[in-house]
Amino acid sequence: MKQYPDPRFQPPSAMDYPRFSGVPSFMRLPLIAPEDAAKAGVDIGILGVPWDSGTTNRPGARHGPRQLRDLSTMIRSTHAVSEISPFAQTNVADLGDVSVNPTDTADTLGRVELVYKSLVLNGIVPLTAGGDHLISLPVLRGVAQNGPVAMIHFDSHTDLNDTYFNGDKYTHGTPFRRAIEEGLIDPQKVVQIGIRGTNYEGLEDIAWGKAQGVRIITIEEYFARGYADVMAEARAIVGDAPTYVSFDIDYVDPSFAPGTGTPEIGGPNTFECQQVIRALRGLNLVGADMVEVSPPFDPSGGTAWVGVSLIFELLCVLSDATATRRFA
Amino acid sequence: MKQYPDPRFQPPSAMDYPRFSGVPSFMRLPLIAPEDAAKAGVDIGILGVPWDSGTTNRPGARHGPRQLRDLSTMIRSTHAVSEISPFAQTNVADLGDVSVNPTDTADTLGRVELVYKSLVLNGIVPLTAGGDHLISLPVLRGVAQNGPVAMIHFDSHTDLNDTYFNGDKYTHGTPFRRAIEEGLIDPQKVVQIGIRGTNYEGLEDIAWGKAQGVRIITIEEYFARGYADVMAEARAIVGDAPTYVSFDIDYVDPSFAPGTGTPEIGGPNTFECQQVIRALRGLNLVGADMVEVSPPFDPSGGTAWVGVSLIFELLCVLSDATATRRFA
Amino acid sequence: MKQYPDPRFQPPSAMDYPRFSGVPSFMRLPLIAPEDAAKAGVDIGILGVPWDSGTTNRPGARHGPRQLRDLSTMIRSTHAVSEISPFAQTNVADLGDVSVNPTDTADTLGRVELVYKSLVLNGIVPLTAGGDHLISLPVLRGVAQNGPVAMIHFDSHTDLNDTYFNGDKYTHGTPFRRAIEEGLIDPQKVVQIGIRGTNYEGLEDIAWGKAQGVRIITIEEYFARGYADVMAEARAIVGDAPTYVSFDIDYVDPSFAPGTGTPEIGGPNTFECQQVIRALRGLNLVGADMVEVSPPFDPSGGTAWVGVSLIFELLCVLSDATATRRFA
Amino acid sequence: MKQYPDPRFQPPSAMDYPRFSGVPSFMRLPLIAPEDAAKAGVDIGILGVPWDSGTTNRPGARHGPRQLRDLSTMIRSTHAVSEISPFAQTNVADLGDVSVNPTDTADTLGRVELVYKSLVLNGIVPLTAGGDHLISLPVLRGVAQNGPVAMIHFDSHTDLNDTYFNGDKYTHGTPFRRAIEEGLIDPQKVVQIGIRGTNYEGLEDIAWGKAQGVRIITIEEYFARGYADVMAEARAIVGDAPTYVSFDIDYVDPSFAPGTGTPEIGGPNTFECQQVIRALRGLNLVGADMVEVSPPFDPSGGTAWVGVSLIFELLCVLSDATATRRFA
Amino acid sequence: MKQYPDPRFQPPSAMDYPRFSGVPSFMRLPLIAPEDAAKAGVDIGILGVPWDSGTTNRPGARHGPRQLRDLSTMIRSTHAVSEISPFAQTNVADLGDVSVNPTDTADTLGRVELVYKSLVLNGIVPLTAGGDHLISLPVLRGVAQNGPVAMIHFDSHTDLNDTYFNGDKYTHGTPFRRAIEEGLIDPQKVVQIGIRGTNYEGLEDIAWGKAQGVRIITIEEYFARGYADVMAEARAIVGDAPTYVSFDIDYVDPSFAPGTGTPEIGGPNTFECQQVIRALRGLNLVGADMVEVSPPFDPSGGTAWVGVSLIFELLCVLSDATATRRFA
Amino acid sequence: MKQYPDPRFQPPSAMDYPRFSGVPSFMRLPLIAPEDAAKAGVDIGILGVPWDSGTTNRPGARHGPRQLRDLSTMIRSTHAVSEISPFAQTNVADLGDVSVNPTDTADTLGRVELVYKSLVLNGIVPLTAGGDHLISLPVLRGVAQNGPVAMIHFDSHTDLNDTYFNGDKYTHGTPFRRAIEEGLIDPQKVVQIGIRGTNYEGLEDIAWGKAQGVRIITIEEYFARGYADVMAEARAIVGDAPTYVSFDIDYVDPSFAPGTGTPEIGGPNTFECQQVIRALRGLNLVGADMVEVSPPFDPSGGTAWVGVSLIFELLCVLSDATATRRFA
Repeated sequence: MKQYPDPRFQPPSAMDYPRFSGVPSFMRLPLIAPEDAAKAGVDIGILGVPWDSGTTNRPGARHGPRQLRDLSTMIRSTHAVSEISPFAQTNVADLGDVSVNPTDTADTLGRVELVYKSLVLNGIVPLTAGGDHLISLPVLRGVAQNGPVAMIHFDSHTDLNDTYFNGDKYTHGTPFRRAIEEGLIDPQKVVQIGIRGTNYEGLEDIAWGKAQGVRIITIEEYFARGYADVMAEARAIVGDAPTYVSFDIDYVDPSFAPGTGTPEIGGPNTFECQQVIRALRGLNLVGADMVEVSPPFDPSGGTAWVGVSLIFELLCVLSDATATRRFA
Repeated sequence: MKQYPDPRFQPPSAMDYPRFSGVPSFMRLPLIAPEDAAKAGVDIGILGVPWDSGTTNRPGARHGPRQLRDLSTMIRSTHAVSEISPFAQTNVADLGDVSVNPTDTADTLGRVELVYKSLVLNGIVPLTAGGDHLISLPVLRGVAQNGPVAMIHFDSHTDLNDTYFNGDKYTHGTPFRRAIEEGLIDPQKVVQIGIRGTNYEGLEDIAWGKAQGVRIITIEEYFARGYADVMAEARAIVGDAPTYVSFDIDYVDPSFAPGTGTPEIGGPNTFECQQVIRALRGLNLVGADMVEVSPPFDPSGGTAWVGVSLIFELLCVLSDATATRRFA
Repeated sequence: MKQYPDPRFQPPSAMDYPRFSGVPSFMRLPLIAPEDAAKAGVDIGILGVPWDSGTTNRPGARHGPRQLRDLSTMIRSTHAVSEISPFAQTNVADLGDVSVNPTDTADTLGRVELVYKSLVLNGIVPLTAGGDHLISLPVLRGVAQNGPVAMIHFDSHTDLNDTYFNGDKYTHGTPFRRAIEEGLIDPQKVVQIGIRGTNYEGLEDIAWGKAQGVRIITIEEYFARGYADVMAEARAIVGDAPTYVSFDIDYVDPSFAPGTGTPEIGGPNTFECQQVIRALRGLNLVGADMVEVSPPFDPSGGTAWVGVSLIFELLCVLSDATATRRFA
Repeated sequence: MKQYPDPRFQPPSAMDYPRFSGVPSFMRLPLIAPEDAAKAGVDIGILGVPWDSGTTNRPGARHGPRQLRDLSTMIRSTHAVSEISPFAQTNVADLGDVSVNPTDTADTLGRVELVYKSLVLNGIVPLTAGGDHLISLPVLRGVAQNGPVAMIHFDSHTDLNDTYFNGDKYTHGTPFRRAIEEGLIDPQKVVQIGIRGTNYEGLEDIAWGKAQGVRIITIEEYFARGYADVMAEARAIVGDAPTYVSFDIDYVDPSFAPGTGTPEIGGPNTFECQQVIRALRGLNLVGADMVEVSPPFDPSGGTAWVGVSLIFELLCVLSDATATRRFA
Repeated sequence: MKQYPDPRFQPPSAMDYPRFSGVPSFMRLPLIAPEDAAKAGVDIGILGVPWDSGTTNRPGARHGPRQLRDLSTMIRSTHAVSEISPFAQTNVADLGDVSVNPTDTADTLGRVELVYKSLVLNGIVPLTAGGDHLISLPVLRGVAQNGPVAMIHFDSHTDLNDTYFNGDKYTHGTPFRRAIEEGLIDPQKVVQIGIRGTNYEGLEDIAWGKAQGVRIITIEEYFARGYADVMAEARAIVGDAPTYVSFDIDYVDPSFAPGTGTPEIGGPNTFECQQVIRALRGLNLVGADMVEVSPPFDPSGGTAWVGVSLIFELLCVLSDATATRRFA
Repeated sequence: MKQYPDPRFQPPSAMDYPRFSGVPSFMRLPLIAPEDAAKAGVDIGILGVPWDSGTTNRPGARHGPRQLRDLSTMIRSTHAVSEISPFAQTNVADLGDVSVNPTDTADTLGRVELVYKSLVLNGIVPLTAGGDHLISLPVLRGVAQNGPVAMIHFDSHTDLNDTYFNGDKYTHGTPFRRAIEEGLIDPQKVVQIGIRGTNYEGLEDIAWGKAQGVRIITIEEYFARGYADVMAEARAIVGDAPTYVSFDIDYVDPSFAPGTGTPEIGGPNTFECQQVIRALRGLNLVGADMVEVSPPFDPSGGTAWVGVSLIFELLCVLSDATATRRFA
């Protein structure tokens, strides 16, 4: 039986190796190949999917995982408010980047699906750093291999469109339409929060989503009600179902996170982002992602710093859920 | 009689021409010369005035119209909240940049006035992208050729100063003093919102404005009362008078819009900016401008993205007012 | 007896010398050597300490004073809300940068201490632009030479750690632990506001601080109560004791102030920063600093603009306290 | 019969419309749809192909045409050395951007091919702004529809690879392998200049190219012989055959042109670039392209300024060849 | 009689005040008002003219003097090759920025002229940091108050145009046409080196210059002959006449100096720039300027670093000429 | 006996893992702890030393190793000219970053020395990525533990100064003075190439170096003679002695490598840098370093790209020397 904290899964001390030093794995965790993860005792695997060929607007998210790792070494070990130390109660490792094919979408979707199916089969909870939002689709194929999951989705866009350009069904604007069609997420248990920005004519994506039962909370509703009220509703919707969390960095206002392909003004600040993730504690979380960080549009790394700060927030609630299930 | 939507005034589909492609006219609208606009059936003309020689501090606003156009191609056709589609109910066109003379202020003021007088005479509603704030003066000479208009003015500065340097009366710090003196705006129907920043000694601009009857709402009052209350007062002040809207990008906090010449900290975020513009719906709007975007101080384009997102908000309420007058 | 306003201490008119012109002293004030300051009648001296060798993470704060001076020339003379004109009621001068030794911490601490001891002995109130936060320690050795002072400290970190790396006791993470140990600040009269960010395991700094009687207000408590309530408590804690104000730029959210070495997301905006400083009016303020502005991480100068805008806020309340004491 | 200079094809005077003003078409030329170009009398069409989905490394070239147009408005009308004024002797127009599908390579190759076939069929000489280097392939399908052409190719890479990733044959590293296989260029009349950078093992691309008869001139040979000697050989190889010129911006040293996806150090400066293009004068040039400008990697526009300065050089020699053929 | 080295004119030791510290005067020299300079014993005065309202294209040179001063503190005291130490053999001081009026060209020309006339009358040799190139005109009015001087001019443009826009005679494209017309420079003793870039039609500026006897050396001639040969000719042309040196930063290739308003590719590198200035040693130099550094187009300061490195080169040869005249 | 190529030391194929993917070790080599390197069969170890507390001017080199690793993943396996594939003939690994103490120079020097002594004792050839230039001193203590070595040093500064500030003997301006004093390098076999920049008065460093027998080749001599001639002399000086190569990125002209603390204009381009390193082939090389890359002064990564491209050049000649010694 596993013992915690496991010394193999502790980041090196910042007193011996200052935070700016060393090859940057996520949060300076051990780097383990996906195929070795189960045997090594990994509970939660952080993976990068360096992909942006599903992007319909400004590219660059393929460089996201690397910049996120770079900034992640400034993260310390313990959450200031919840006092959760994810490394103390779960074995967390960096499983590297999934192999992608930047010139072939179908090939890439297959590769990602394969890796995640195997991880989930082996009981490893995946936390993913994108990449554009299309990658949530093959991740969900892995996460939901035993049936549809609930989803809480933070974004300024629904990503519920049907097709782009010449009828292409697989872009970063379509993953959740596909996921519903494929039975990976249960639309009655899907909440989308923060939706905003100008619309293509017809607002077809929103209409379709509502028709399936997706709960779409616009940014106007969000600010009018406040995050606590909104998150209470979100928690009620997903209940105790296995729940996936998808966080598009463009949920955050672009002044906090300019490094993304399709920014929309009028979004929440980072304090609000922290609160909505903290409000996920206690849910039956089975996976999460942070997508659409595009370093070429923010070489300063400020966006990636927001991204990894929120990945740590996600990790804390995921770790808590994982530790809870251990004793269930 | 005009038919709407007029197919000649629809942006190309983003499914055929992705939003990053094409020569960037404003919102990918047709480009029509001002002198051809009336005949072509234009209702609302968007014009650039690439000018910054009235700038007393940091220059660069002459490059504003181009960067605003560049970013504007990411705007889609329909407003997410009001569901207004300005291109469906009015004929909107990009009328290009007005010819300016960067080394001669008087010459430039004359050229701009001439173009706007002609447009307004022909019933075309102007929406202007600056350029420094001095350009509001010759625009108002066109808009108010039949008598003073009301004005709602978003800014961190009053722009009510008398002279600069060696007695110069025409700088970006003086346009509304001149406009009141020239009878272009009715000071009893002028509201200035968001005023802040350190002051020259004496606060003469504020004293003068108040003496004329201008309602000056500081940022402290604004935040204390909330935008809804402030905008209710603003609407009451202008009533149903023909109303011009002038929006200086430095109204927005500089973390959202660093690309401007005279930033002042402590300003509103972009969500608040969207709300104050939406609150203009139903007024008798006869023109608007967005000024002081200075690309050299924000090559990333983030400021211009805020600028054009707000220009679209302005366009929606202008379009609504224009359509309403059609049936009045 | 001194007469105010003293013409020797007025910045040149921006009408004769535009704000972008001239060698940039702080707020375009006269530049006087520290050893000549008392004789010249200086009441408040603004000094730079260009130092970052106490930095444990990302360096660059040694370049802070210069960029702060550069941006400071955009400050005008009068506070918009309080209408305080610090140059009218006190003699304020730029006393230049203290000589530092970037490769020797002990040498530098001694040099800074010497300068500040002499200034304070001569009745000059110091306002300091860092430099990393370690410089508050030798400044306090000067300010508190006659006994411990109270302190209001705005920061995302407590800077109450004991040692770093191989037992080093003097870094930018330890100044206030040392200051309490040395009896420079009275821990019962110390308030720390805005604390946040991930923690090293054990949260030893917070535990130690609380044990000494330091009042630590996390950002969560801050936002829950609101700034007015928090500042009322802070004022009550320091009472009428001589009070030092230390302001780390990383208190501000990094979207407003990215140019710093250890940013933490989820912080207050600049409007809130203005309010908390304005709430210091009426306290018995004896010195202040603004530290950790690191220009290499924000070459645009936006962070420095926030920094000097807040330095002007600090100057106004310091000037008021100084003028008040004159008649006490 | 056409008359030159044709007033319809003259850029507006920079004395009336300063170069920073106006919607940026290429060199401020008239904007004409490709399908209208022949009828309008266009001799040379400048087109953008905003495409980077063939990119195997760092993306962003899809944004190239727009930034190139932006900077192109600083180009004046006359070549300083040759005194060629292309607008005086040929009708040059901006034909806009070709419609592309960023998520479907085959679809895009077809669309581009179609446009270029039609243009060339109508006697219009194409000058293309990429986009990644894959776009040269469909352009050549248009240019070489009546038989293989010669090619002078400036680049740091051969782009003669066979496949990438999972056997993909259409990437920006393969266009000229495909072009040779498809009989679009005659390998005996292809010269590649400037080849450098580390190699994949085996140097298969170079071996294959040499086996076909391609003349590959490394950067070392180039600098050892000097540009005059190299260009004399290049001219001899293509002789009077119809010749296409392909210019990858990564031919230039990255200090001059950092905004590209796969930079290689040790390249020529821009003066040398000007000379090698000028040395093309007198050849039977039938088309040219400038590819791989990637604005996200150089938001300053410096790379695009190099790019359009060289596009103007290309235009001058293309215009000369076009005018020459008119009287042939 | 003056004694050299004069301790009042030595920069502080970088061992006491590291080069990144202190209020940045030029090369950390004493700051003296122009009106006090003669009495203080100044031989050479370095002045800034923060002006760009003569700019026809991209503005920002008004911010040049400040950024040049900032970077200048990295300059050490002794020339590595000539071993000239200008501070040892002449009294050099920073005379601050001349007061300018950014919204009034005529006013500004007058102010600058006045200052320079007075300085030159008092025997002080001026070294000027611009500002746009128009400022050379009022400087020359001061320098040449006793008769026309010779000039060696490094630039990519002739600045010999007649008028811009609506007949404006005073822009940064016209100063030397005016200077010849006003008899300030003797066209038979004027050499322009490095001329390049596309031309307005007609090449009128070049034709006019040649007609006056100006020797115009294009960049092509420059590179063909080599700098030694070109500078030998330049030296012969000016002979022992009092000679002014005007150096436009756009002479340097934009990869070295991107921060300027009108860059032209294909220019010399900085090593060549150093050599051409060193070749001025022994001439009867009476003043010099470095103009057109525009910080908003290079916030990194790299361009300013080139600028001040070359200002130091100019200072060395000016100092040598000044010291030589002392014993003449 | 070792077999080459050893499959354990091959980077993953860029066809399976695109170059932008994966945790960035140097050139995507295996990551092995220094203490495990000998047992694992490593021939050449690449290490980072993330250190800049010896910096007297602008800091940031502590962030060098990470940015160099990031860019290094764009390096392919084979040298284009020599066709050396270092991974085929030697076992090369990334040994991570040495643990440093940013607030204690003596502590850090000891730590670095210890690691390098052990590596060299175990026959592993070190290739180091700095960090500031002080780190060459403890590296040499390891490399020269059996007696002084020869050194070829590329730099714009001699780094032969005695002390800084208050007599500090260990800064990035003194390492080679110390190394000569400690008998680590034989001054008769030391060549310094590229020396330039302004000098502190007295030029004491140069005089001292010459007195010891160091051959100092200024940039002027370098350009006058050409690199081939200079390198022939350098090779003759070191002969077949064990030779260390130290390469300061500020040797390169700052237009190619702006990201460094003390740039000096007038340096060589990157093609020249490649040639001088290639000219080291055949020497008895025993170690090398690349220092002073400071990412905060070039967030674009262009400088790091130059740095790693040259590290690969260094690796090729080091690998060749290592392979040669195997059969000696």
